[in-house]
Amino acid sequence: MPLLPHISQSQVALTKEVQVLDERGRLLTISIPAERALTVYLDKRELLTLMTIGANPEALILGYLRNQRLIRTLDEIAAVQVDWDVNAVAVTTHHGVSDIEERTSKRVVTTGCGQGTVFGGLMDEVDQIHLNPDAKIRQSALYRVVDTIRTHPSIYKKAGSVHACALFSADGELIYFVEDVGRHNAVDAIAGKMWLAGMAGSDKIFYTTGRLTSEMVIKGAQMGIPVLLSRSGTTEMGLQVAEQVGMSLLSRCTGRHFLLLTHPQRLEFELDHTEATLAGDLLKA
Amino acid sequence: MPLLPHISQSQVALTKEVQVLDERGRLLTISIPAERALTVYLDKRELLTLMTIGANPEALILGYLRNQRLIRTLDEIAAVQVDWDVNAVAVTTHHGVSDIEERTSKRVVTTGCGQGTVFGGLMDEVDQIHLNPDAKIRQSALYRVVDTIRTHPSIYKKAGSVHACALFSADGELIYFVEDVGRHNAVDAIAGKMWLAGMAGSDKIFYTTGRLTSEMVIKGAQMGIPVLLSRSGTTEMGLQVAEQVGMSLLSRCTGRHFLLLTHPQRLEFELDHTEATLAGDLLKA
Repeated sequence: MPLLPHISQSQVALTKEVQVLDERGRLLTISIPAERALTVYLDKRELLTLMTIGANPEALILGYLRNQRLIRTLDEIAAVQVDWDVNAVAVTTHHGVSDIEERTSKRVVTTGCGQGTVFGGLMDEVDQIHLNPDAKIRQSALYRVVDTIRTHPSIYKKAGSVHACALFSADGELIYFVEDVGRHNAVDAIAGKMWLAGMAGSDKIFYTTGRLTSEMVIKGAQMGIPVLLSRSGTTEMGLQVAEQVGMSLLSRCTGRHFLLLTHPQRLEFELDHTEATLAGDLLKA
Repeated sequence: MPLLPHISQSQVALTKEVQVLDERGRLLTISIPAERALTVYLDKRELLTLMTIGANPEALILGYLRNQRLIRTLDEIAAVQVDWDVNAVAVTTHHGVSDIEERTSKRVVTTGCGQGTVFGGLMDEVDQIHLNPDAKIRQSALYRVVDTIRTHPSIYKKAGSVHACALFSADGELIYFVEDVGRHNAVDAIAGKMWLAGMAGSDKIFYTTGRLTSEMVIKGAQMGIPVLLSRSGTTEMGLQVAEQVGMSLLSRCTGRHFLLLTHPQRLEFELDHTEATLAGDLLKA
């Protein structure tokens, strides 16, 4: 068990009330997600500035550094200190990070909803990833994930305009739920929580409200997670990367519907269950 | 009238058919958006790699270079040549780009749905932007925009998982409609088309299917556009930047509903029109 870094426990408001006019000129007060810049200093060297809602900045930065492969093992890190008074996070390592300049020099601008950035080496690394071939997901566990997400309390329900990512056990039990203004922040924060907990991804299910784009699949693969669910769709490169690393992608997961896009051998269909549930839903309707 | 650069006219397939399984194990064929890497070479120097659907690569790259303020005037550019055989675009300038290294050195990772990148100087530039104070939008023109988007043929209707941006006249007449896997690509492509056409933004309306995040507002402001509409929501920094530059933000624009978030003086309410239309909708329902 490595010595864990010292982690601050910062707290900030996650939503903000603003006054707006509707189509009839009526004054309304609505909640919107908070959004703040967070500049990352790695051993006092400015690395980059992220925009985040501020819910899990420490886990976010740890996961970002891990997913970008800028830091390999947790015991390299002495401390992660977030200071919202100056919108900065200071990451201190025990022995410094070698060839940091070289590793952050090449930009690849990815899809997401935007022009997300992964540093160059990442794409090459994907070629070496082969996810746990024995990992399976039961159809009933998949539905448990979807139902849990639908009913889970969220910033989205209050303020909209955030993306959620969540980590589940193979049985569909919720482990982590994270929302942020950027869905990549949400997945990075979950990676950070897993890193701190020393948790493996090989027997987990990952859910995102966002699209299954290449960089989401890459990040899931880096975390070793064999099954990635979304209520949204996919893109061509997301599909290609999932095929390559052995990840089962499931899109359009809403109610009892889903589309299984890749590596169908991982899904254990329980059609009776589906029939029964569908019948149940019809009766309720 | 400056000499226009030589622009290639590349063509690629924008959707791809894939076979998937649904929740009952039935084999379905669905369309997903194409997605390809496009590496940008500026005077033979590799600048970055974008992921794009490939619909408007020439306009996309021009708009990207303009919105990132890497090239100031169109007549600096001799040619933009896209070659999908090697997934590359060669941008050639007449006299080279000064201090390109310096201008691309600082990263700011923004929200969007992801960790979008704008180069550092951009944020500072926003302070100097003050949008046309006389620009107005009539409520009926706003509804014309929303109705046009709803009925416009789109990749989204066929394959989902893309974002659309569109430019409209002050009367709500469609000028440009662009879809891409990344919404920032879509807005950059429109910026490129406007640049090529020598079109001003000061009397235009901009629509995006994506959220009104800070970088979307910044890009709209750079294009001089005083009114930004979305069917989605906003974030705190999107709102702040819009307040600062004098942009009217309208979120949740669907049917006859919208929320006017900033600079309400720009909207000319036509309540009778709304009442009438609402009554009409009710009768139809």
